[in-house]
Amino acid sequence: MMSMHPLDEAIDLHTIAPHEFTGATHPAYANMVGPFGGTTSAQLLQSAMLHPERLGEPVALTVNFAAPVADGMIRFLARPVRTNRSTQHWIIEAHQTEGVVATATAVFAVRRETWSDVEAVMPAHVPAPDAVPRMPVKGMPAWPQRYDMRFVEGAFPAAFDEQEQAHSRSTLWVRDEPERAMDFASLVAISDSFFPRIYIRRRRRALIGTVSLTTYFHADSALLAQVGTRHVLGVAKALNYRHGYFDQTGELWSPEGQLLASTHQLVYFKD
Amino acid sequence: MMSMHPLDEAIDLHTIAPHEFTGATHPAYANMVGPFGGTTSAQLLQSAMLHPERLGEPVALTVNFAAPVADGMIRFLARPVRTNRSTQHWIIEAHQTEGVVATATAVFAVRRETWSDVEAVMPAHVPAPDAVPRMPVKGMPAWPQRYDMRFVEGAFPAAFDEQEQAHSRSTLWVRDEPERAMDFASLVAISDSFFPRIYIRRRRRALIGTVSLTTYFHADSALLAQVGTRHVLGVAKALNYRHGYFDQTGELWSPEGQLLASTHQLVYFKD
Repeated sequence: MMSMHPLDEAIDLHTIAPHEFTGATHPAYANMVGPFGGTTSAQLLQSAMLHPERLGEPVALTVNFAAPVADGMIRFLARPVRTNRSTQHWIIEAHQTEGVVATATAVFAVRRETWSDVEAVMPAHVPAPDAVPRMPVKGMPAWPQRYDMRFVEGAFPAAFDEQEQAHSRSTLWVRDEPERAMDFASLVAISDSFFPRIYIRRRRRALIGTVSLTTYFHADSALLAQVGTRHVLGVAKALNYRHGYFDQTGELWSPEGQLLASTHQLVYFKD
Repeated sequence: MMSMHPLDEAIDLHTIAPHEFTGATHPAYANMVGPFGGTTSAQLLQSAMLHPERLGEPVALTVNFAAPVADGMIRFLARPVRTNRSTQHWIIEAHQTEGVVATATAVFAVRRETWSDVEAVMPAHVPAPDAVPRMPVKGMPAWPQRYDMRFVEGAFPAAFDEQEQAHSRSTLWVRDEPERAMDFASLVAISDSFFPRIYIRRRRRALIGTVSLTTYFHADSALLAQVGTRHVLGVAKALNYRHGYFDQTGELWSPEGQLLASTHQLVYFKD
């Protein structure tokens, strides 16, 4: 008998009414306090994926983290507010006892083949995943232990030595741990797995919290299936830090050089 | 007597019930069909700005364009779904007779001074706005005529000659036309004023439509006031085109080199 992957357990939602689903935080994806935002994002997306009126596959997802998510049950309200011939628009809310803890909007679409090309540039001369050591996860919260991360550049600092760096750029191979075939749930969660850039940049403690996360899916499920259980290459960098908020932008590449997703987030910080 | 700027006329919404506002498309911002998405985005944001329960200033806005907006009345439903001590989360919907035409989520915040820095790099050696000719707007729809755009690189092609370019990058000075003091409404609209990258890249006609637009505001109103009526420097580029959708990312810089906003969008295309 096969046991379920913890990510599949985490996104295992139950329909309780039309447009209404329940799920729960999963201890395997716990953060310092509450759950990893990537798992919450995957749950929000999953509520639309499971919905009987769903059309096509996700092309855009924005998650706003409205309040700390408490460990325990979450109720998801997923409404397809507009369904066109080949696109569908969603508003999704995550509720806990004391109110809304996250909101999301999603665009789903039925895609067709067109002229395609990538303008973004995949980092060159990156060693293969086997040639890069895995980030040690001992002592870390549960969620980074659910990823096999191999940093080529811009690793999470071994110590907060307050040696400010010139930039916050990271390049890393990343996959689910244990291995799991890539799909939209995995891709969304990985989109939120880039450590907050301010830690890489300043190497000092700061209170942080993502307030908004947007992911554009360039891959369809067929392309994701080709990735399988292999690592994807992630790159991330910050753009601007000002008055309590900074933004960071990331790309996730298949080993063959296909841009699977681009992802952007705005993060609150207190220094 | 001073007449109102067309952008102020366009965002002049009226409260008709708690959380409910009406407005209309404005002929001065007409696109080929329906209104310029930047104005619709500014109206969605304005409904939260006008709301009596509003806290602070916008830090993030995502607009999803769910269906073509018809010329005429639009009803806006703006709900603050979560208000914390220093942040507030919004879900906003734009309705017309036949249903939802756009949705938005917004994060507002009361900001405080912190360590600040910019990692993104403002283009160097850019000539001053006075040294760059204004893009001719004769024959264009109304909305580009509401902007004074001065392209340093990557102008809208004078002809669709199908000469594919190596990249889609644009650098331009842009301001409202007629002049108008910079504020959040202007900044949001300008965030959607970058021409679809596929036109710059392929120099051929394509059916296009933005499906999702996210803007992160790094500037507060005090910094925007310093910009005044001057041009801001816009840079935009595409990341990936695949199976009917491409994404583009942009930055808006003050003349002094402050990053005012970063903005990302996913665009449908049919070639």
